[in-house]
Amino acid sequence: MELTERIPAAVLGATGVVGQQLVRLLHDHPWFSLEAVAASSRSAGRPYGEAAEWMLDRDLPPDLAEKIVVEGGEELSAPLLFSALASETASELEPLYRDRGHLVVSNASRFRMDPRVPLLIPEVNPESLELLRDQDSSPGGLITNPNCVVAGLALALSPLHREFTVEAAVVTTFQALSGAGYPGVPSLAALGNVIPHTRSEEEKIEQEPLKILDAGFPISASAHRVPVADGHLASVSVKLSRPTDLEEVAEALSGFRGEPQERRLPTAPERPLVLVGDYDRPQPLRDATRDRGMAVTVGRLRPDPVLSIRFDLLVHNTLRGAAGAALLNAELALARGLLDTTAPDAAVEVP
Amino acid sequence: MELTERIPAAVLGATGVVGQQLVRLLHDHPWFSLEAVAASSRSAGRPYGEAAEWMLDRDLPPDLAEKIVVEGGEELSAPLLFSALASETASELEPLYRDRGHLVVSNASRFRMDPRVPLLIPEVNPESLELLRDQDSSPGGLITNPNCVVAGLALALSPLHREFTVEAAVVTTFQALSGAGYPGVPSLAALGNVIPHTRSEEEKIEQEPLKILDAGFPISASAHRVPVADGHLASVSVKLSRPTDLEEVAEALSGFRGEPQERRLPTAPERPLVLVGDYDRPQPLRDATRDRGMAVTVGRLRPDPVLSIRFDLLVHNTLRGAAGAALLNAELALARGLLDTTAPDAAVEVP
Amino acid sequence: MELTERIPAAVLGATGVVGQQLVRLLHDHPWFSLEAVAASSRSAGRPYGEAAEWMLDRDLPPDLAEKIVVEGGEELSAPLLFSALASETASELEPLYRDRGHLVVSNASRFRMDPRVPLLIPEVNPESLELLRDQDSSPGGLITNPNCVVAGLALALSPLHREFTVEAAVVTTFQALSGAGYPGVPSLAALGNVIPHTRSEEEKIEQEPLKILDAGFPISASAHRVPVADGHLASVSVKLSRPTDLEEVAEALSGFRGEPQERRLPTAPERPLVLVGDYDRPQPLRDATRDRGMAVTVGRLRPDPVLSIRFDLLVHNTLRGAAGAALLNAELALARGLLDTTAPDAAVEVP
Amino acid sequence: MELTERIPAAVLGATGVVGQQLVRLLHDHPWFSLEAVAASSRSAGRPYGEAAEWMLDRDLPPDLAEKIVVEGGEELSAPLLFSALASETASELEPLYRDRGHLVVSNASRFRMDPRVPLLIPEVNPESLELLRDQDSSPGGLITNPNCVVAGLALALSPLHREFTVEAAVVTTFQALSGAGYPGVPSLAALGNVIPHTRSEEEKIEQEPLKILDAGFPISASAHRVPVADGHLASVSVKLSRPTDLEEVAEALSGFRGEPQERRLPTAPERPLVLVGDYDRPQPLRDATRDRGMAVTVGRLRPDPVLSIRFDLLVHNTLRGAAGAALLNAELALARGLLDTTAPDAAVEVP
Repeated sequence: MELTERIPAAVLGATGVVGQQLVRLLHDHPWFSLEAVAASSRSAGRPYGEAAEWMLDRDLPPDLAEKIVVEGGEELSAPLLFSALASETASELEPLYRDRGHLVVSNASRFRMDPRVPLLIPEVNPESLELLRDQDSSPGGLITNPNCVVAGLALALSPLHREFTVEAAVVTTFQALSGAGYPGVPSLAALGNVIPHTRSEEEKIEQEPLKILDAGFPISASAHRVPVADGHLASVSVKLSRPTDLEEVAEALSGFRGEPQERRLPTAPERPLVLVGDYDRPQPLRDATRDRGMAVTVGRLRPDPVLSIRFDLLVHNTLRGAAGAALLNAELALARGLLDTTAPDAAVEVP
Repeated sequence: MELTERIPAAVLGATGVVGQQLVRLLHDHPWFSLEAVAASSRSAGRPYGEAAEWMLDRDLPPDLAEKIVVEGGEELSAPLLFSALASETASELEPLYRDRGHLVVSNASRFRMDPRVPLLIPEVNPESLELLRDQDSSPGGLITNPNCVVAGLALALSPLHREFTVEAAVVTTFQALSGAGYPGVPSLAALGNVIPHTRSEEEKIEQEPLKILDAGFPISASAHRVPVADGHLASVSVKLSRPTDLEEVAEALSGFRGEPQERRLPTAPERPLVLVGDYDRPQPLRDATRDRGMAVTVGRLRPDPVLSIRFDLLVHNTLRGAAGAALLNAELALARGLLDTTAPDAAVEVP
Repeated sequence: MELTERIPAAVLGATGVVGQQLVRLLHDHPWFSLEAVAASSRSAGRPYGEAAEWMLDRDLPPDLAEKIVVEGGEELSAPLLFSALASETASELEPLYRDRGHLVVSNASRFRMDPRVPLLIPEVNPESLELLRDQDSSPGGLITNPNCVVAGLALALSPLHREFTVEAAVVTTFQALSGAGYPGVPSLAALGNVIPHTRSEEEKIEQEPLKILDAGFPISASAHRVPVADGHLASVSVKLSRPTDLEEVAEALSGFRGEPQERRLPTAPERPLVLVGDYDRPQPLRDATRDRGMAVTVGRLRPDPVLSIRFDLLVHNTLRGAAGAALLNAELALARGLLDTTAPDAAVEVP
Repeated sequence: MELTERIPAAVLGATGVVGQQLVRLLHDHPWFSLEAVAASSRSAGRPYGEAAEWMLDRDLPPDLAEKIVVEGGEELSAPLLFSALASETASELEPLYRDRGHLVVSNASRFRMDPRVPLLIPEVNPESLELLRDQDSSPGGLITNPNCVVAGLALALSPLHREFTVEAAVVTTFQALSGAGYPGVPSLAALGNVIPHTRSEEEKIEQEPLKILDAGFPISASAHRVPVADGHLASVSVKLSRPTDLEEVAEALSGFRGEPQERRLPTAPERPLVLVGDYDRPQPLRDATRDRGMAVTVGRLRPDPVLSIRFDLLVHNTLRGAAGAALLNAELALARGLLDTTAPDAAVEVP
């Protein structure tokens, strides 16, 4: 796709861990340009470089550092808004901006399970974007991406469910510290420790894949925080509706492609699922950033003595699991003609 | 039980992580006294304080530091030998010493699945000590304790299997670095990372509980190393043969007691399984040393949407999972009259 | 010293990291008994076990867990108060309780440099307790212990200054996370990182030893936080007024004893300074808890090519550097007859 | 500089941590092309992707993974050899290859202090390359870069010594785990700990800067390993020969440039020393990779109460401190016409 000029975008909740990734990714994006950064009243009016405790290992580009933060809720002119808001704030601000005519592409959990809101993984359920019709908020709209674990889990379950019908899944996660945001987990609690996660995280892992896959099988999730900076690992056992040999399963996973790959969206990985053979992989430290953090690594595929198959998967929680997911969602919306670039004065076109 | 004098014991493989724990525990033991420390030819002839890279956070007592290491294989006079040998060396030395008339209480994996060798958790299968009869090596004998994860897992499954009949279990582990011994995992690989464990570890977790519980249900295990010093955590889903409510399950776990508690063995914890209520527990950093590292902490008990119930358990891998397990095994053998304290010149009595 | 009954004590700021250590140490103290725990209004009225995020690896004893927290500022009947308050709160509450007739033994920094307040390390400047006379607050009084690094640094400099006259010191610290309290340093910032500390920490290290040693030499301090749970390490270069050989220095350090050792105070270590020979020691993980965390480990003693001598020292920051320091201070006050156990209705006796 | 074609290069010791960085950097280098990878007999004959435990977070490019490792000592045709050999092997192989006519650019410590061998930091002592004349090994030659800490330290001391004459320096280091190679420090020893480094490391820090700066002032060094993956931090106190204000010092550091910047060598950072203002910087996690790991970050510049000034510096130990240093050295040699690209059959030209 060729654009004559880049589409202005803004980031809501720009100072947090996910907000920073969005800001960084938008800075160099071929289709979108970062017009504004918004955050809470505590940050508003200050240069972004001061307001954000910049966590990424690349320097904050100077032009971004000087951008003045606006307060969430203020009028924004960019047609495209990325939301990295906390759930409570999202509850208020996302509908507000949608009603003002923006396409809000959100990482927040607040509206994910709303039946009128797409819970989108572009490789898995691109057609869910059609739900924008039901939002009755034209020209505005609201799209969400799933929870950071689900971003990898539903991606891996998708070809399995399509080809073999998944009947159940048991999931145990090893989640990175960046998933808790900043300041997040105190170091005295995290260092040299494993901390069981909240029940609400587990509920997301048990429910969101079903909406994405349009399925009804049971998922059992147990979530834990480990002292890792980035990259959520999950050990997954899956029950399939019929006996299969591992090679078929391996092919289904490795061969999986979707609309982002066909359309060559800028943030799309070459292969959404990369299957590795070494028994000691995937590892967060070595595999999380595969293909700019957008490829999910799957390894240790083997028969499961209780269900059918078992494997580990690794997803970069702030990229494929958050900021990169939101970008890919926006790219798909644009590619499908669902983003009217003249908004907020204009409409999200639903063909 | 009152002893007129302490029974001499020696430690094989005394310089490693588990060997050090054995040495420390024997130093203050009411029934046993540490007579000799044995290790490889590399360490033999040197003072223990030099030969062992002492890892424990308490100082090595001076009398131990000065003890001269003997080479594994040399004649030992102590009737009771604790083995923290690596599997290959155990293969050679454990039968050797048994045939010389010692009671060898081993933490090595080599002979665990041998049908004539007790794979013992004193709370679970004390009667397995009767297998000593079948060893035809009187007055010597060989007893083993299970893999460090299994030490906790089989303990927790025991009351469940007894009361509700376990039909399957899916297990995912978060294993501490001390489980890999010293030098073990390189820090560059471990820091800020999760490393999938070997397949052979998983096979032990899938097989050993069945021997201990005398059961035949399938277990699916996935093992991982996490940057934690001590304490293996496992997330466990269990299928029970009949519907149960959680309170019944909680009572079965909390109320579980065994022969070590009845006999008040010195290393026995007051309660083998301690059930905790906070959703963010157990944690290795806070719960591993419960009751001198001999109590297994169980938490997050809840219904499992795929199997029947789900919980986390935490076992101190070098105590309840290794050195403490061996001590408790020896204590039970003595209490049951199976350790002839005049050996190696005398027999292991099997009543 | 024999007491007919234990003296009631209370802890102000009882829920924090240092407050928890005080509570734990008082629970088993031979001279003092823990009567009350006080904290902010947020914790007041709740059981201590709920109000405090218990961080220590031993279980919180049940009788402590159930103790109801009182609000700081309320009337307390215990004659002896330990303060682990933050500086601002200490500013208000410590004089208040002193004026009500309590002996306040504080770990807070607020009044350390006040010329009328003892800044006490019992081995170094026990006579500073006489300053209580100048407080004009009889029967109440206020005693402070130094900053956690200074607790070790001034202890090591004391025999050097006495015997060789210190002319300058250059200090670089590696400080543990527990020194920042809870929640303290975010794990995303701490894991795998070194964080330069605040300038105010460095100023304390540069100034407090001079008051304690009654000296005027310059100290240069550079402080850093490292991902270690407990134990502050410092690399120290010292300029002495005259050439000395290392053996003399080693003897001065090793042979150092003070009033707590003579009086056999319960919290006193056998030797305040333990000199070790291995070049890779001291290490926080292995040496911090030496002698119940009250002995400072000194190692790597060698000539310094720029100043005179160089060494590393390690001090347990929440024990010798905070809670244990306060206890030892209180013990000395009692042993010297400066704690009137009938207060707050009675006077601090100054002989 | 424009080259008609890239110059073939080989890496000795290619499987280690520094060797891997060299391999990665050469893979994309504009002037050099990676022709061969050499390592010990254990690795020889195997594909590089198998022989090397690839540690870097980017994937090993497939063409490199398939390259067959040759054994160190075998004939190599590339005129340019990079050595990441351990000291003992370097002792044997570096002179061997030099005598065969290769330009050996070494990171090993073995020949650094040899008076005929350049110990080169291109910004500091480019003229030391003239020492190649004295090697009497034409067409071959041997160039070394300093110890990883010294790579940053001598760089920072250079403008200070030139403008204010340094009279003494006291240095304390916080060194990353990657500096110990792989497997290096055991995780059980490193996690949550600080480990004093070897005396030989300290001697390098005390001696190498004097050769590089052609100076004779005393340096006191104390080195420690911290649980950080990459990036050596050093706290440095410096005595200057005359009073200066901090602004002058800041300008001398910030304004420092050298021949690599003038010649725009491919691996040269824009500014060798980057002075930062925040009091909590530099931090390894955030600053080590500045300008592709080739810029040294200096921060916390302040007066020193004992010497003259004090600051922290951070150097990426495997880039500016090892692999990047070697590359920059080779680039300078080429730019100065000291690398005859027809060797090993031809000579290193010394104009």
